[in-house]
Amino acid sequence: MDVAQILLDLAIILFATKFLGILMKKIGLPQVVGAVVAGLLIGPAIWGKFGWWSPIRPTEESSFFFNGLAEIGVIMILFSAGLETDFRELKSSGLKATLIALAGVAVPMALGFLVAVPFMGGFSALKDGTVALEAVFIGVILTATSVGITVETLKEMGKLKGKVGTTILSAAIIDDVIGIIVLSVVLGFKDPSSNPWKTLLMTALFFVAAIAVGILIHLLFKWLAKRYPHKRRVPIFGLVLCFVYAFVAEKVFSIADITGAYIAGVTLCNLKQTEYIDQKIDVNSYMIFSPVFFANIGITASFDGFTVSLFLFGLAFVAVGIIGKIIGCGAVARMCRFSNRESLQVGAGMIARGEVALVVCRKGIQGGLFNGTAINPLVPVIMLVILSSLLAPILLKLLFKGDKSGALPLTPIGENGETAALSVESAPTETAAEAPDGQASQA
Amino acid sequence: MDVAQILLDLAIILFATKFLGILMKKIGLPQVVGAVVAGLLIGPAIWGKFGWWSPIRPTEESSFFFNGLAEIGVIMILFSAGLETDFRELKSSGLKATLIALAGVAVPMALGFLVAVPFMGGFSALKDGTVALEAVFIGVILTATSVGITVETLKEMGKLKGKVGTTILSAAIIDDVIGIIVLSVVLGFKDPSSNPWKTLLMTALFFVAAIAVGILIHLLFKWLAKRYPHKRRVPIFGLVLCFVYAFVAEKVFSIADITGAYIAGVTLCNLKQTEYIDQKIDVNSYMIFSPVFFANIGITASFDGFTVSLFLFGLAFVAVGIIGKIIGCGAVARMCRFSNRESLQVGAGMIARGEVALVVCRKGIQGGLFNGTAINPLVPVIMLVILSSLLAPILLKLLFKGDKSGALPLTPIGENGETAALSVESAPTETAAEAPDGQASQA
Repeated sequence: MDVAQILLDLAIILFATKFLGILMKKIGLPQVVGAVVAGLLIGPAIWGKFGWWSPIRPTEESSFFFNGLAEIGVIMILFSAGLETDFRELKSSGLKATLIALAGVAVPMALGFLVAVPFMGGFSALKDGTVALEAVFIGVILTATSVGITVETLKEMGKLKGKVGTTILSAAIIDDVIGIIVLSVVLGFKDPSSNPWKTLLMTALFFVAAIAVGILIHLLFKWLAKRYPHKRRVPIFGLVLCFVYAFVAEKVFSIADITGAYIAGVTLCNLKQTEYIDQKIDVNSYMIFSPVFFANIGITASFDGFTVSLFLFGLAFVAVGIIGKIIGCGAVARMCRFSNRESLQVGAGMIARGEVALVVCRKGIQGGLFNGTAINPLVPVIMLVILSSLLAPILLKLLFKGDKSGALPLTPIGENGETAALSVESAPTETAAEAPDGQASQA
Repeated sequence: MDVAQILLDLAIILFATKFLGILMKKIGLPQVVGAVVAGLLIGPAIWGKFGWWSPIRPTEESSFFFNGLAEIGVIMILFSAGLETDFRELKSSGLKATLIALAGVAVPMALGFLVAVPFMGGFSALKDGTVALEAVFIGVILTATSVGITVETLKEMGKLKGKVGTTILSAAIIDDVIGIIVLSVVLGFKDPSSNPWKTLLMTALFFVAAIAVGILIHLLFKWLAKRYPHKRRVPIFGLVLCFVYAFVAEKVFSIADITGAYIAGVTLCNLKQTEYIDQKIDVNSYMIFSPVFFANIGITASFDGFTVSLFLFGLAFVAVGIIGKIIGCGAVARMCRFSNRESLQVGAGMIARGEVALVVCRKGIQGGLFNGTAINPLVPVIMLVILSSLLAPILLKLLFKGDKSGALPLTPIGENGETAALSVESAPTETAAEAPDGQASQA
């Protein structure tokens, strides 16, 4: 193993993501966009097409290593999001978020299916069960929102704790769950060994188990944090819990590991040392893991096998992926008495796709779909991830411009002043942003 | 790649190292010992001998990943050691401390070499260049002092700021520098085809280049830290520098990457934001990378070929490691007009070994030394770390019993109070210690 090369690659990734992140911030874009663009510029995705040299030339070994770091990065982002979940707030936005998430799954899924059909030989070709399943699967890929980028953007603007932010976060988490259930069910038709009812049962069981065990663990950490305040063992054991939950979710309950990480974070939220844990996770995240994750999206992007037909499909796929979320989530938000602007904010906040879309796509291909089809969804998914990641923060920034309402806490300050204070403090601690920390955030 | 399994392995490593680290601290041993022992207990080193199950069963993939994390851990440990070098303090206690450090490197190195020879086939076997190099390397492992435990003991007795305490602290820092230079030169010879003069030249060139470029970089960071105090870019660019130096040292100058990391740290020491950089590196180090490194030593340890001969060698190795420091440092201290008692105190204060000895040992094994030799120094080094860590505080307490003189400061407090205060503060921030941080260390 060429460790020295990995160190140099890491140095290049950290420098490029930070440098482009700062540049992006200067022109009013969130730093995560800079990190993804940095990945495109330092990796072979663009230069490789011309046979040119690029600073990062992934080998099988280095890809393996950086994929691992990136996965830990995703886990940390979701764990951190879980830690920052305010349970009391989530409870109050529960029903609305569920309805929004349901629409955000159904509409893009239907549109994705409809867009896939013409590229797969038209409706007559759907008599072949496999083709029909593949068309449905194209829709499935569009279901899962990637909260990472949206969370970063909202945090950067200090809107994460507002009504819209909380709704987006809750809905995105719920649509992850729904998306994974849908994925399991669809894949269940392909693979006769996996029973869709069993999948549904396991998902339900995971949440029941997580709540039951979570209460005990919450009490355990309450004691630990009180007995050993500001001791290293508190965030370390917190991270241990996060990794264990991620593993158990993936291996025991066949749910995405990131769902486990998020639930681990929720388990430890609303503790006196929650912010302390979050800070330590945050430092790890922004110093190494998170830049590697975002850069890796750009570095591993490939434009090979890119026919005109696939490109046209990709454009349609991206378009319905983005429009489907805005229409689906926005319309339901409007029905739930959000204002027009807030409804658009919610819709725009749900368009970003990321690691889950890639994972879902890969799972489909691994499951035997898209063998010898003209449409391999990998490149379109990468297009979607890049474009939606670029578009989400731009749209959010536009839609929040001059908007003061998002910063208001859902509950009156008088009743819940502590929560409001927390949101103000936690605002500058986002993963990739260039915020002053240290003394200030320790206050 | 089985990411979920890697997450579980990480959780097991983090939990076990922290848990055993806390236990070890309770019985007066450094936490690194707990981390290595944790690795032995969770890995296959012991249980595998009986064909039993162990929590961590490394696969080719997971070994690859964890070796990468461990290497980053080592880099961070050495970078942090470099950052904590206090140039001003070194200057003030300079000459005596330098002489003591030199003797503390030379004597244990010579004794280690002499003790290794009989176990390697006697002096006649040294005609084989590799065997000779291995014998020298046994000596090199004995050079680096770990002040952590000594500092804690002296602080507890109120003797840290005294003449003896200051001298020990400075000498320990200087012997890190000397040890790194010696290590670089010796590792440069590991390739039998390499020209010894070229190796020496490259090592010298590296240090010249590092100093020349280092001055510019120091000024650049001085500007950066002043312009953007407590901004994330400062520690991130610091880490970038560290990784680049490590890469350049290894690939351009054929010196160990840890040398580069250490020098990168020295380049950034004595800046206004040095402590801030060190804190962020420290959080990354103790949350993930450093536990993985120490646990990995235990996990990858092998007791195959653990013979009576190796055990005897281990005892001799530990003995000369301890006696060599007491004699070497003590004698030179006596020559520098320390009293008999003070000289013994200085000698006893230098015997403790810790993470750097483990790092150096692993570096040698990675570099291809001790392949198929009867003597694998890993177990002896672990013995040395444990025994010297236990012995150092006992000896110091005995030697300081009833001693009132040590409490007097070497320089008047009025002149140098700030530096002394800094050394007290930075003392407990070693890599694996369970120190309350947060508010306290931010002061």
